[in-house]
Amino acid sequence: MDSKAFFKLNYGVYIVSSSADGKDGGCVINTMAQVTSSPARLSIALNKNNHTLKLIETSGTFSGVVLSDDVEMDLIKRFGFQSGRDVNKYDGLPQGRDGLHNPYPTQGVCARFACRVISTLDVGTHVIIIGEVEEAEVMDEKTPGLTYSDYHVKKNGATPPNAPSYQENAGRTVGYRCSVCGYILESDTLPDDFICPVCGKDASYFVKL
Amino acid sequence: MDSKAFFKLNYGVYIVSSSADGKDGGCVINTMAQVTSSPARLSIALNKNNHTLKLIETSGTFSGVVLSDDVEMDLIKRFGFQSGRDVNKYDGLPQGRDGLHNPYPTQGVCARFACRVISTLDVGTHVIIIGEVEEAEVMDEKTPGLTYSDYHVKKNGATPPNAPSYQENAGRTVGYRCSVCGYILESDTLPDDFICPVCGKDASYFVKL
Repeated sequence: MDSKAFFKLNYGVYIVSSSADGKDGGCVINTMAQVTSSPARLSIALNKNNHTLKLIETSGTFSGVVLSDDVEMDLIKRFGFQSGRDVNKYDGLPQGRDGLHNPYPTQGVCARFACRVISTLDVGTHVIIIGEVEEAEVMDEKTPGLTYSDYHVKKNGATPPNAPSYQENAGRTVGYRCSVCGYILESDTLPDDFICPVCGKDASYFVKL
Repeated sequence: MDSKAFFKLNYGVYIVSSSADGKDGGCVINTMAQVTSSPARLSIALNKNNHTLKLIETSGTFSGVVLSDDVEMDLIKRFGFQSGRDVNKYDGLPQGRDGLHNPYPTQGVCARFACRVISTLDVGTHVIIIGEVEEAEVMDEKTPGLTYSDYHVKKNGATPPNAPSYQENAGRTVGYRCSVCGYILESDTLPDDFICPVCGKDASYFVKL
């Protein structure tokens, strides 16, 4: 099996959030899709180690935003490069709150959804969640959603979208690099249970620099 | 609810195929994603009216290919604009057959997967299928996967990727146009159970021209 085949799949970039027991949280995912239109339902996939998943399981609801093509990297870093167990990612962030009481970022996003969980499917390390959409709003008519390959370009500067980022990033720093999205963990060790904070891939996808 | 919010989601373009009782079939979908890496598992979503779904349910396996950025429109038309109930879409097509005995197109694709169904989730008009990947192969190292927005550009010529294709296509012909992908059904009537052959949306997404 050639794992590079998976790099050919195309995704967008999204932030999924929820709120439970007075705590807000959210994370970056690349797996959000409309699965039915009547009624409107979305699917998302979250790693089981993800703090946001616990919030969604408790509240039974979630918000989802589509990141804009011109999103500031700070927003992705805020939601992708740290854990909601350690910090409140919504502290000080321009935000809204939808009809299901979940927060969502209001800058750098072009659409948002408010969803109620109607079913879940355990797929191993991850859970697929189906949400019935109760609110859908265009936040920015002109700007398209950020694609996962453009995210690599923006994050890595010179990396061409056609080239897997793991090739272009080689040797830029020390640590471990996610071979899927290019995220670099600057550390001497790679924990067995480490999950890429950007794309959710597990430690087996990381290569030593 | 503003249904245009859903147009902001990003997808790729894929062909999923299967073979049962001596018959080969396949269809175009925009929903394929890697959901876990250890083991490698893919999710796909298919409309219940889709002929290919019947083949997958019978065989318990499917192939998936990622269409290349430079794919010929004829391949998309072959698999997207007609039903496998009426024609054998693989007749005369350059093709391979994977270890699970499913056919796959070999031209205009940049990666392929052979999958065994391990679970399914009924989400209403569609079914989400989880496949464990038994084969993964890069078919074209240099060419990236076609994005759904680029597909609109290629199909419609002048349609900018940032603009919903339903705006740019208005008045080009007669019939009904899918407001999501721009596919045009040249017909005086729109059957209630009509499913867009390209993106799988139902009749409620079609607008009269």
